Amino acid sequence: MALKVTARAHPNLAFVKYWGNADDALNIPANSSISVNLDGATTTTSVVFLADLERDQLTVDGRVATPAAYGRVVRHLDRVRRLAGVTRRAIVESGNDFPASAGIASSASAFAALSLAASRAAGLDLDERQLSVLARKGSGSACRSIPGGFVEWAAGSDDETSYACQIAPPEHWDLRITTVIIDEGPKDVSSSEGHRAAGTSPFYRARLDALPQTLATVRQALLDKDLGTFGLAVEREAVSMHAVTMTSWLADRPWLSGVYYWQPGTLALILAVQEWRRQGLEVYFTIDAGQNVHLLCEGERQAKLEAALDRALVDVGGRTLVSAPGRGAWVMAEQETS
Amino acid sequence: MALKVTARAHPNLAFVKYWGNADDALNIPANSSISVNLDGATTTTSVVFLADLERDQLTVDGRVATPAAYGRVVRHLDRVRRLAGVTRRAIVESGNDFPASAGIASSASAFAALSLAASRAAGLDLDERQLSVLARKGSGSACRSIPGGFVEWAAGSDDETSYACQIAPPEHWDLRITTVIIDEGPKDVSSSEGHRAAGTSPFYRARLDALPQTLATVRQALLDKDLGTFGLAVEREAVSMHAVTMTSWLADRPWLSGVYYWQPGTLALILAVQEWRRQGLEVYFTIDAGQNVHLLCEGERQAKLEAALDRALVDVGGRTLVSAPGRGAWVMAEQETS
Repeated sequence: MALKVTARAHPNLAFVKYWGNADDALNIPANSSISVNLDGATTTTSVVFLADLERDQLTVDGRVATPAAYGRVVRHLDRVRRLAGVTRRAIVESGNDFPASAGIASSASAFAALSLAASRAAGLDLDERQLSVLARKGSGSACRSIPGGFVEWAAGSDDETSYACQIAPPEHWDLRITTVIIDEGPKDVSSSEGHRAAGTSPFYRARLDALPQTLATVRQALLDKDLGTFGLAVEREAVSMHAVTMTSWLADRPWLSGVYYWQPGTLALILAVQEWRRQGLEVYFTIDAGQNVHLLCEGERQAKLEAALDRALVDVGGRTLVSAPGRGAWVMAEQETS
Repeated sequence: MALKVTARAHPNLAFVKYWGNADDALNIPANSSISVNLDGATTTTSVVFLADLERDQLTVDGRVATPAAYGRVVRHLDRVRRLAGVTRRAIVESGNDFPASAGIASSASAFAALSLAASRAAGLDLDERQLSVLARKGSGSACRSIPGGFVEWAAGSDDETSYACQIAPPEHWDLRITTVIIDEGPKDVSSSEGHRAAGTSPFYRARLDALPQTLATVRQALLDKDLGTFGLAVEREAVSMHAVTMTSWLADRPWLSGVYYWQPGTLALILAVQEWRRQGLEVYFTIDAGQNVHLLCEGERQAKLEAALDRALVDVGGRTLVSAPGRGAWVMAEQETS
């Protein structure tokens, strides 16, 4: 008999970004970050450890995983096996209800759900902090998808002190996140490569120096539900991260003078948002390491935003995904199998 | 009898940008800059001082000037009158053969041509340094359109020490500059406003700190005609300036989280240039405080670049203007009138 555990987690969207590591191997970040879980997108992952398997098996969205994804998941299962003292191999089935590699960090929800499902299936009963530490080692920002609602990941100084905690529950603030999917193709430079290049930017140090103030402003405005202060600080913080990427260099791609995650449609929406605000519609943007734009407004403005977006989308050509603040990772089912 | 002097000057394109002032009133910049004159665009300006005029008269492209342009030109004529000890009012006729306010700094060629024409018409015979100092007070980067070819504007520390000198004559390097005019409309935030906002960026100080190294790299690569080193340094420098603008704030436009000179077509060309390089076409870009993109290549690559651009322009929709390195400001005609 073996326990098959199915867990779910939402991706999260950072208001203060994680960009650059203090420790690449352990994913200990150079700075603390603040995020919200996105209830409009979910990864569902089931794990069962079986005695008679020769090697781990992984399917993603019903297909055998790529070697890169497989290796990353096996290394994460190894962490769980070490913690639980088990040696059995696992069958892992994972599925996303949103497009991968397009600016919504599917690795965050994937490693949050995997950490919860695999640890439970291996017989562990980790608390939220332990789960967040574990998820971080799989994919840095995955630690933020473990707690619910609005979350802060304290950078910490070592493996034990770098994890995420809730700042406010999902129901604290009726913030809506409209993700405009500019282009569903994969990006040219992965987030991991971008993190490693960050230190080559002449602005990296200045960004880190400004972050304690940015974190304090965003945290307090979030607690106060002060959208004006919150939104401008969040936009400036996102553009600050992209200013670092655009002035970063990758030694193995000498034809690139910088790392660009923006596409023309990304910039079209950045400019549209500022024009909408000039016209009185209170909406703000943020952008992760990808081309998609996440629009932020309060629930009562959502209909107006969607009308403005419908007109703008004639030019941008994207699709949208609307989220409210989402819960933390949770167990959906546990089932004895033989 | 009075002397009517007609002078011409080219606009210039900065490889290392002027962004931010040490002294706003005197246009003493926060950093030195390097540029080339663009022989594909010219301002022609004639000036005559007449005894019986009640006030200065100014036409631009055959039309009576706007009050803002008029005021700026009168203040410049006042500087010339003080130097020459004359009190007569002037008739000024100025014309550009390229669109104004669209990323090609027409104020540079305009104030260079005006400085030369007005000083000669007032009976002065200023040397290159004196003309460059005078032009700078009209519009900072105008000082770079006085000498010919490749030019460096030493920031200096006061009115006498802040002027431009030739680094190399026009024939030193067969560099071609293809200006892609993304959109001919005026920009939302003027260069003067952008300069004043620069200090609000968290990256302004870091950019200034990096500039001595950037200036040394660009100057030496230019003298060596080393396009690979030159081009990457010039791109990174331009993006560094725009990273400062995008993270700058204007107190009187609270709906803007930053100052954006780029349009979606600007970014489309930035990405296209990097893709062309990956495919082996050695071309680089730079962007002034506007949406236009200036493409840099050597003369022997120009045909290939234009072919690549013809395909890309299906998407971008712009027009182009091709320049080689141009001469400094010159007198075209002197004529006694009565």
